[in-house]
Formats: sequence, C-alpha cells, structure tokens
Amino acid sequence: MSGFSRREVMRVGAVGSAMVAGAAVASPLNGPRMLPEELDKDSFAAAVKELRAIVGDDWVFADPESTVSYRKTFIPDTKGNHIPSGAVAPASVEEVQAILKVANKYKLPMWPISTGKNMGYGCATPASSGQMVLDLKRMNRILDFDAELGTILVEPGVTYQDIHDYIEENDLPYWIDVPTVGPIVSMVGNTLERGVGYTPYGDHFFMQCGMEVCLADGTLLKTGMGSIDKGNTWQAFKWGYGPYLDGIFTQSNFGVVTKLGMWLMPKPPVYKPFVVRYPNMEDVAKATDTIRPFRMNNLIPNGVLIMGALYQLAMFEQRANLSDTDGPIPDAIIKAEAEKNGLGMWNVYFALYGTEETIAATEPIIRGAFEASGGEVLTDEEMNGNPWFEHHKTLMRGGMTLEEIGLVRWWGAEGGAVAFAPVAPAKGSETNGQTELAKRIMESYGFDYAPAYAVGGRELHHIIFLMFDHGSEDSSQRAEKCMEEMITEFGARGWAAYRSSVSTMDLVAQQYGEANREVNARLKDALDPNHIIAPGKQGIA
Amino acid sequence: MSGFSRREVMRVGAVGSAMVAGAAVASPLNGPRMLPEELDKDSFAAAVKELRAIVGDDWVFADPESTVSYRKTFIPDTKGNHIPSGAVAPASVEEVQAILKVANKYKLPMWPISTGKNMGYGCATPASSGQMVLDLKRMNRILDFDAELGTILVEPGVTYQDIHDYIEENDLPYWIDVPTVGPIVSMVGNTLERGVGYTPYGDHFFMQCGMEVCLADGTLLKTGMGSIDKGNTWQAFKWGYGPYLDGIFTQSNFGVVTKLGMWLMPKPPVYKPFVVRYPNMEDVAKATDTIRPFRMNNLIPNGVLIMGALYQLAMFEQRANLSDTDGPIPDAIIKAEAEKNGLGMWNVYFALYGTEETIAATEPIIRGAFEASGGEVLTDEEMNGNPWFEHHKTLMRGGMTLEEIGLVRWWGAEGGAVAFAPVAPAKGSETNGQTELAKRIMESYGFDYAPAYAVGGRELHHIIFLMFDHGSEDSSQRAEKCMEEMITEFGARGWAAYRSSVSTMDLVAQQYGEANREVNARLKDALDPNHIIAPGKQGIA
Repeated sequence: MSGFSRREVMRVGAVGSAMVAGAAVASPLNGPRMLPEELDKDSFAAAVKELRAIVGDDWVFADPESTVSYRKTFIPDTKGNHIPSGAVAPASVEEVQAILKVANKYKLPMWPISTGKNMGYGCATPASSGQMVLDLKRMNRILDFDAELGTILVEPGVTYQDIHDYIEENDLPYWIDVPTVGPIVSMVGNTLERGVGYTPYGDHFFMQCGMEVCLADGTLLKTGMGSIDKGNTWQAFKWGYGPYLDGIFTQSNFGVVTKLGMWLMPKPPVYKPFVVRYPNMEDVAKATDTIRPFRMNNLIPNGVLIMGALYQLAMFEQRANLSDTDGPIPDAIIKAEAEKNGLGMWNVYFALYGTEETIAATEPIIRGAFEASGGEVLTDEEMNGNPWFEHHKTLMRGGMTLEEIGLVRWWGAEGGAVAFAPVAPAKGSETNGQTELAKRIMESYGFDYAPAYAVGGRELHHIIFLMFDHGSEDSSQRAEKCMEEMITEFGARGWAAYRSSVSTMDLVAQQYGEANREVNARLKDALDPNHIIAPGKQGIA
Repeated sequence: MSGFSRREVMRVGAVGSAMVAGAAVASPLNGPRMLPEELDKDSFAAAVKELRAIVGDDWVFADPESTVSYRKTFIPDTKGNHIPSGAVAPASVEEVQAILKVANKYKLPMWPISTGKNMGYGCATPASSGQMVLDLKRMNRILDFDAELGTILVEPGVTYQDIHDYIEENDLPYWIDVPTVGPIVSMVGNTLERGVGYTPYGDHFFMQCGMEVCLADGTLLKTGMGSIDKGNTWQAFKWGYGPYLDGIFTQSNFGVVTKLGMWLMPKPPVYKPFVVRYPNMEDVAKATDTIRPFRMNNLIPNGVLIMGALYQLAMFEQRANLSDTDGPIPDAIIKAEAEKNGLGMWNVYFALYGTEETIAATEPIIRGAFEASGGEVLTDEEMNGNPWFEHHKTLMRGGMTLEEIGLVRWWGAEGGAVAFAPVAPAKGSETNGQTELAKRIMESYGFDYAPAYAVGGRELHHIIFLMFDHGSEDSSQRAEKCMEEMITEFGARGWAAYRSSVSTMDLVAQQYGEANREVNARLKDALDPNHIIAPGKQGIA
C-alpha cells in the first residue's frame, strides 16, 4: 500500500465570500459546506481570490447559494460526505493550467467534471467533501471533424446533443453513440467513466481515439499520435508508439482531460430494431446464453440490453400508481403491469444494421435462436408506438432521449437513485444467482429490484438501479446500507462493479486487490505528487 | 524532460564464466560481448552466480558460445549496440521475481523476451549492449481455456503454433489470429509489441483481455478483473475498475508480463478469401479509398493488406534470380515478373466470414466498389493454387505459415532485413507521397522498395521491409543510414512509426514529443526506480 491514508475531511461552516447573500435558503442542499483538508478559511479565501483573477469573478463559486447546482445529487449522502467547497469554471486549457498551479500552491483539491451529469453515480459531487469542482462546461467547442474518417475532436463541455445537432446541421452520414440521458451528458465525461451506449459503437472507451491531458503540474500531454509534428493521425490511430497511456486517464484522477477524440459510426442504409420478450424472471439465463454467441460472432453488432420489467415501467410510472404499500412490489403485480404495457418480465433489445439483403440474411438465424429459447421476437411491425420499444429504437440509432430520468422519480418528486453494476462472464449461469441475491438484499431494505443486464461482448453487466426517496432521511439511510451490503455480498461471490458512485469508490477499489491499489498509488504520486486532482476518485488518494 | 540521460554502454571483452570453452568460434556473432553499465567483471560474475542458484546452471548463459542464439538478429548492427551480456531462463513466476531481486541488487539490466522472434525489429537483442536477456520461453503453459467464451490465458513461451495445435487437438470451434511467421512467435510477445494479424481479430492488443505483470520489485499485478477474489471474469472483461492499466505494459519496460489473456474468434461456417489486383504503382491510392468505408462499416471485417509486388515476390524469390545488377530493380522488371506469377503491382487481400447467405448479400457491394476503382476482383475460383493467394488465404483464417521468412534472404543466405512502419490516416491521398519518398530514399542507398500497406481501421500502416545483405559490412552500414533517413524524413512529414527496431527506438520516440517522454520517464521511475527492466526500450531509459 502507498503511504497515503484517505483524507479526513473537516466539517466547517460556510466560509465567507463577497457574494454570500446572508440567509440560508430552505433547501436540503444548503447545509454546511466543507473546506478542503489542510486549508483554513483565510487560505481558502486567498486561493479563491487567485482563482478569480484567472477566470473572472463570474466563474468562481464559493458560497452556499452559488454552489447549489454543484451539490445536487440523486445518490444518498446522509453524512454529507460529498459536499464541494466551491467551483471554478475555466474557459480554456491555459486557464486550467493556471488553476492547477493555484491548487498546488494551496493544496486545494480539484474535482474535474465535464457537465456533471453522472446521474446514477453522484452527478457533479466529489468523492470527499471540501474539494472544489473544476467545471469544464465552458470549454465546449467541437474542434475538429473529419468527414472521410468519421472522427471528431471535442472539449469536455460538449454534450451528445451538441454533437447530434452538429451532425444534423451539416447533414453528415454518421451517428454518434449516446449513453442514456445523452442530450445533457458530456461525451468526454461519459467516455472517461467508461460509459457505454446502444449502437455497435457502444463501448465508448474503445471508440475513443486520442486525448489531451493537463497534468497537475500543467504539462500538456497529447496521447497517441497527437504530438507528431505536422501529424494528422491523432483521431485515426489509437495506440501510438510506446506505452499506451490513454487508459490510465479513464476512471482516474491522474490528470484533467481537456480534449478527446472519438470515432463516429457510419449511418447504415437500413436499421432494424428488435425486442424479444421473455415471460419469467428466470428466463434471463436463456436470454444471455442466446445472445452471447451472436455478440461473439458479431451477427448482433450492438451491445444487447436485457431490460427487467420494473426498470422499464419506472421510466414512465411513479411507484404510487402501482402499489400503495411501502414494501417491495410483488412480482405478480409487476408482471401484470408489464403485460398490460406490451412488455415481458425481460425485454431484450438489439438491432441489425446494413442493407435489406444483409439483414435478410442475418435475421432468420437470430430469430430462430431466440424463438428456440422461448423468446417472442418482435419488430416495428408489432411494436410500433410502444413507448418502451420507441425508447430503445431511438437509443440504438444514437438518438436523443431523456426518458430514463424518470427512474429517479420512482418514489416521488425529490428524486433518488444510485446505480450498482457488477460484471460477470456472459453466461446464463451467472444471472439467476445475481438476481436472487440482489432481490433478497434490496427487499430486506424495502426497495424494489429494478434490473437490467447488458451483454457488451463476452461480459455481462448487471445494472441494478436502486431507487429510493431522497426526501426521506430514513429511506436515504436504508439506501446507503443496502448499497454497501450489495457491493460487499456481490464482491464476495466474484461479482465486482465496473464503476462506482462517489460514495462507494473506495469500497469497490478494495475488491480489486492490494497490488492494483499499490500501482495506482505509485502512478498518482508520479503524476500528481500533491494529490490535488480528485483525491479519492476510484479509491485513489 | 526527465533527469535521465540515455545510458552509455561500456564495451569490454568477454567476461569469465565457468562454461567458457576458450577459443572464439569463427562466426560474426562471436565478437566482444558487453558488460552492463556500472558492473565490473567481478560483480557480473557474482550476479551470475546468484542467478544460477535460482534457475540452475543449465539456464544461465553468460559466455560467448552459449549466448550465440540470443545475439542472432536480422537487423543491421555494425557498431555492436545490441549485444547482450548473457541470458537467464526462468521456469516460473517465482523465479522471475527472484531474478529481478538479483537484478536490482547488482543494477543488472534485464531484457525480457518471450520467444525472441521479433523478426523485423531485432529478434531477442536488447536496445543497448550489456543487458541480460530474460528469456521466458520455458514458461510455456496454456493455463486456461473457456469453451463458451472462446478465451485463453497463456504464458509468454506459448507460440501461436502451440495454441493452434491445442485448438486442433481439442477440436474447438475457434481460430487464433496469427501474425506473420506465427508458428514460432509468442502470442504474449507479439501482443505486447502491439503486433497485428489478418482475421477480424487482427488487432491483438484490442483482443487481449487481462494480464499478470511482475514489477521490478517483485509485486505481482493482475490487471482488469484478475484480482477479484473468486472472480472468473478475468478474460471476459477488459477494462476492470479504475485506471485501465494494461496499455502501459505494451511497447514498454515498466514490468515483465508473465501471463496474458486473449479472445479467440468463433470459426465461421463459411470463409471466402479475395484478392484484388491493381496494375500500377499509383493505384494504391484508389485501393485505400475503396477499402476505408468497408473497414469503417465493417462490411470487410478483417484488416486489409495491400501487398506490393516486390514484397510478394521476395517471399519466394532471391534477388539474384530477378536481376544481376547491384542497383535497385526497375519497376518494369518487377511488373513483368509479377504478371508472370498472377500478381498485380498491388494485391489487396481481404476475406468474408459468415454464412452463404450473409456473404452473398455482402459480396456484390464490395466487388462493385473495387471494380469501379479499377481493380480486378478474384477468388479461389480463379486463384486456386497461386502460392501468394494460398499464403494469404492461410493467414486470413489464422493458419500457420513461415513463408514470409523468405524475405530476409533476398540478398542471400546471410539474411538481412529491418522493418519500418509509419502510420497515416487511411486516405488515398496519404499513399503515393509516402511511396515516392520511401522509393527515392531506398534507391539512393541501393535498396529495393518492398512495400505493403495495411488498412486496420481508420488508419493506414505503410510496411516498408528494408532487405539488405547482412554478410556485407557495406550493405549493413547503408541499411542503417537508409533507415535513419527514412524515419527522419517520414517523421518530418507527420508519418511516424507505430513500432521500432531496437536500433531506432529513441529516434522514433523523439518524434512523439517531449511531454510523452516526460510522462513515460515518470512512470518508469515510479514502477522501476533502478531502471533494471529493458532500459532504452521505446526510448525509455
């Protein structure tokens, strides 16, 4: 292990700022703010002053009121562990460099965000209180687009909507792969978190090509082919020469990524989306075993989602409309409601992309296999207009939709949800044990099991969306305990998360072993010796 | 820049060893050997004694005779810059750990090889003289195979032939993607150098999943999902949690990779190879522009090779049979010889994989585009038995062939060849300028231009195989100067190599900029503070 213990954060009252309005606003977000460790009020004020000199007064936020938007989160945080001390929003790489210089000088930790819409994992909030949000939303230029190669180079503030609009406005023959709630999400942020989407370009990190990283000391690193004099290969070839570095800047706190390249999918002549309905909870095993060979031989070219009924229903329904009890909703009610809406207990979404001829050649093979496994294969013909089918039809062609935001309102308007996504091999035998475990733990805390499984390639992501009532202290506390127990129990069985909310980053990191932590600690020391970039991110101090 | 200057290596006479036979053997390989920097003869002898205690007397080679095989190389080395001080061959990870402990104690640099068949780039020889080869060939177990997922976990000494045999013996429905001269090459070694092959799984580093790395201090790191207790996802999911680390151990000297996981391609029901002949040198531009869209939309799923006539002819012909002059062979002669053998000046090899129906749906689209560009599209029907077609037909289904070894004998039995592979965007406009530049430089040194281009995805690799006479000091010196000039001139135009022979690693690294070198230097210090693993590799001290 490295010599760095996790930082203890001191809880203090709101610090002074020229902009503070005085009276506290009546919102749960307006509790005490946190100062960074090792910084007293005077030092913090001095640092803020220097930051104002860099970006201008309008772009430093250092009082409770102006930081409200940065403190907004859907995950539970009953102990106030994720409250930023403020935020600063630079407009350029040069300003990022200057900010990091100040951060080093004052040992002021900076939590970089792109647009801060990491919905199920903590939005813009830092891994520990007191960090200042480094908000990159103003750096929002599409810097380069290559029409022949279908590649794009963007800044962190660029959303998927921006790219979608750019493509539409210029009538380009490409699709951008989007994650859920794509319109408001940053392409850079999602890719750095190794988020995924729904088209054949759904593994965003794999489709990423070249980045610019600002290190803690201001060094600007262009990865891959980015530093070749007169080179034009930065977005064409991923690996470069020598150690391939991009990976260490994903799910990481080793640098601030200020530019990122991405490949776009050529728009196919024909696009045909499918859903396969399965009636029973245990059918997820059969679905998985049917999907795996098609992902491996690429007959199905996109990541396949196996959506649980409750996950689907919660997009458009509030809990109160389905049940008037506080306890978990019984499967029978969910099943009946699903059937009423044209859904199975599991709904498998995939698509074919090509010409009429290539799809005609492929479809019967896939259809036959799903039908043999007990699934009901449906297309636009039968499902046209079904809101869930339309939703996935939109996603699988890289379309814009915000509908999954509905999930956070399951328990009411306050909103509350946190995601847990353990990974397993893509085998049916890995599914029902997970489902039973998650269901048992969640129901013991009074929550509903809202699942999806995703078969990206040879791996299976189990996406468990824990919905709770953010307005209730009790519900929030139960959600925290439930999540901790799930992570622990799943981990003990070999199922560890590929990603984590800010509140469980360290817990998950422990499951990846001491050698991994030790190497990360050494890399952190080498690249950010003062630990000013996002301490605690993914459990790295 | 980092504070590390490149190591200066001291030339000394052969050092004492209990095994030295006395008289020098009459081979050019038996010139003076090199001691590692900072080591006098006594220290070296003491280190060797400790190594013998770890692996046994039979597996330490520390005299000119027993190290002959490690000094054999096809690249020019007129200054003796790549002569190892000896070799040590451990049988287990524990022995690797013990060896690295000795290496740290004596500051004895270790150059890890898997099987040492890095043909165009220096075989087993180190980046600087005096390093001891850490030969991992005895660690040659296939550790795991998953029949459902088509994944494999192997040690460094496992060759592609071993895996091929394993698949055949067990009648498994998978193909392993091989690089050229696959039978004698290590899968681990090729993947770590980011080598490529010929099937849809040709990007070996992308298809790699999970590794075990022994760091200089003996720490054993399992990347990705490898450290999860009771986990079985190591070969199923690449990215793991937190910073993705595998990349920094490729083309790198940050650790010794002792295990590596790989995905295997499901064997398709139908396999159909194609060649497209183009008659003129300048047609490479049209070929590239025709291929690119099909690689981007994946209608052609494998990496496409555009093989120059001379590269092809040199596989089976010696130069003396085509020309009796020392000067470069004129294009007209090459063209005539190519035609005689059923070849064009450029020959594009690709394949389709699927069912009769999917191939029937795809083939007309591809065929039409190539024909419209002036290519002649041929299949097994017309080319059956043509040795070049058969060669690529073998490669594109992951078959075993050693035929490309013929290239090194172009000038005679002594053998001599070195590869240069600059990268550009996959655009026709990038091709002819490169061809002209390479041809001009090579011909000015009296060499023949033997080219291939490869379209992996959005990028174009120009593979220039410089063939020379290793038995001639003059030819070797010209080859060195020619290579240096090519790297420099291509680099100045933005075309930098994705890989390098041991003799030009630093030259290429310079083209990737100071920030890149600085970051690599910091990572090296963090992971191998005594710089005992492969100093100089990819220009990292």
